[in-house]
Amino acid sequence: MHDPDRQTRWQPLNPDYERLVRETFDQQNAMKLIGATMTEVGPGFVEIRLPFRDEITQQHKVLHGGVLAMMLDCACAFACGTLLPASETGFTVEFKVNLLEPARGEALATRGRVVRHGRTLTVTSADAYSLADGEERLVAVALETVYHFEAPPR
Amino acid sequence: MHDPDRQTRWQPLNPDYERLVRETFDQQNAMKLIGATMTEVGPGFVEIRLPFRDEITQQHKVLHGGVLAMMLDCACAFACGTLLPASETGFTVEFKVNLLEPARGEALATRGRVVRHGRTLTVTSADAYSLADGEERLVAVALETVYHFEAPPR
Amino acid sequence: MHDPDRQTRWQPLNPDYERLVRETFDQQNAMKLIGATMTEVGPGFVEIRLPFRDEITQQHKVLHGGVLAMMLDCACAFACGTLLPASETGFTVEFKVNLLEPARGEALATRGRVVRHGRTLTVTSADAYSLADGEERLVAVALETVYHFEAPPR
Amino acid sequence: MHDPDRQTRWQPLNPDYERLVRETFDQQNAMKLIGATMTEVGPGFVEIRLPFRDEITQQHKVLHGGVLAMMLDCACAFACGTLLPASETGFTVEFKVNLLEPARGEALATRGRVVRHGRTLTVTSADAYSLADGEERLVAVALETVYHFEAPPR
Repeated sequence: MHDPDRQTRWQPLNPDYERLVRETFDQQNAMKLIGATMTEVGPGFVEIRLPFRDEITQQHKVLHGGVLAMMLDCACAFACGTLLPASETGFTVEFKVNLLEPARGEALATRGRVVRHGRTLTVTSADAYSLADGEERLVAVALETVYHFEAPPR
Repeated sequence: MHDPDRQTRWQPLNPDYERLVRETFDQQNAMKLIGATMTEVGPGFVEIRLPFRDEITQQHKVLHGGVLAMMLDCACAFACGTLLPASETGFTVEFKVNLLEPARGEALATRGRVVRHGRTLTVTSADAYSLADGEERLVAVALETVYHFEAPPR
Repeated sequence: MHDPDRQTRWQPLNPDYERLVRETFDQQNAMKLIGATMTEVGPGFVEIRLPFRDEITQQHKVLHGGVLAMMLDCACAFACGTLLPASETGFTVEFKVNLLEPARGEALATRGRVVRHGRTLTVTSADAYSLADGEERLVAVALETVYHFEAPPR
Repeated sequence: MHDPDRQTRWQPLNPDYERLVRETFDQQNAMKLIGATMTEVGPGFVEIRLPFRDEITQQHKVLHGGVLAMMLDCACAFACGTLLPASETGFTVEFKVNLLEPARGEALATRGRVVRHGRTLTVTSADAYSLADGEERLVAVALETVYHFEAPPR
């Protein structure tokens, strides 16, 4: 968790990983429903953004913690996805989220990174920042395990 | 986690807790967006349901794991809410989710329960079941910490 | 987490599982160092106990939270171990612990149970109780993922 | 988790924090039992080391995962401790550990850092490295919540 250059040290096994990751993201109706977009993709790294709007708040009119968790899970899972060969598919085994402060402002940026890439289990982490008036504030962090395996072509 | 009758052993501090819990749930736009409804409220216990529909799926057309997490977080937080005096407000500090199998079928039922109710920190857990053809399958579990405190009346 | 009879619904794949589980536990020097003993073994279930003594405390002279975590991890992992065929070995992928109150008294009893037994990933949970004057108090809970696979005979 | 210089941006509220942190660590009998020593203390940061020896292994003769968790918890909690005023005391609310690979070699180094320092809740993370032949390998990571409050002088 200490290595800011982590995203540069991974070698994707699929040269066309960015296209596959973006296509898969676009197939997630739930991410479309909340209004999220994938803004960055790199080896072992993705950024997903979410403009704030009234439909995704809780009772105090700040971003719903569950939506924040959804964004963090997604950033973690796709960070792993960037490293998988085209023949493999992955799914989230588990994750933990710490909500640090209310998320308000203009948008949320969640950044997922691979911590350790294994043969079948990959550990990832993500940070979520609220963006307001040109400033970023860290509002939540997550730690996640992804399981991946050879999947028959669909 | 061992006590099936846990929900009967708590004494709510607010006699009118059910109304307050339901009102607060209804103020969460994000839960409305995904289509969730609160189906049961008891001392230290709530059930929240979500009919499956295409808008909340991921790329394999099963329920998005992030939406599942959102449901579990919500069930955990409101289970704590049932025990709070009217003067207190609570927020999720952190939670962990284990996704056990793909959630498909007709609907999801998530049941949150208080594990330990403290003065400022309450620990809760939740189970999520997919409902199909009259059968329930356990698809995910969560463990959560809620922080609560005296809040000025709004 | 909802099924008090969970421990009776699992079918061990190794008829001799109890002997293997107890032997493996006895090979863990670290558990010997803190003074733990395995007091119960059943299908998908184990209990591990730890008499309190000064050597395992923290600065306030209550049980060290790290030792509590160690006990919970162990109860979770061995609960999974009871269900594995003799040819498989397992290791802890990750776990989360919630410490509910200081653990003091005469001893600690930790009870691990299988929540979901999969082909390669098994999810378990554990509760820890402090024992004092014939009474049990819930002092901590845990949720854990175990990975298991065919291992070459040693 | 993104800021390698995190440890330099915190201002301890107790000018004498290093002495208090080291004294408290020395009062933890459980850490003495496993053989751990505090090797570094800074604002929002500590390092704790553990020489490997046979007494702290599991059945495969690598470091016991529970002991690893104990080290990570301790590094997280003391990282928070460096920022507390002398009048406050803290305790671990919960933590999550991901075990990445077997820990073997000469020793373990665990480094804890504050992620977010709040008025009553502080979130910390820790990394554990095995040291062998002059090389470090990341073997586990943790994410923890600490609760702190004014405590009557003892």
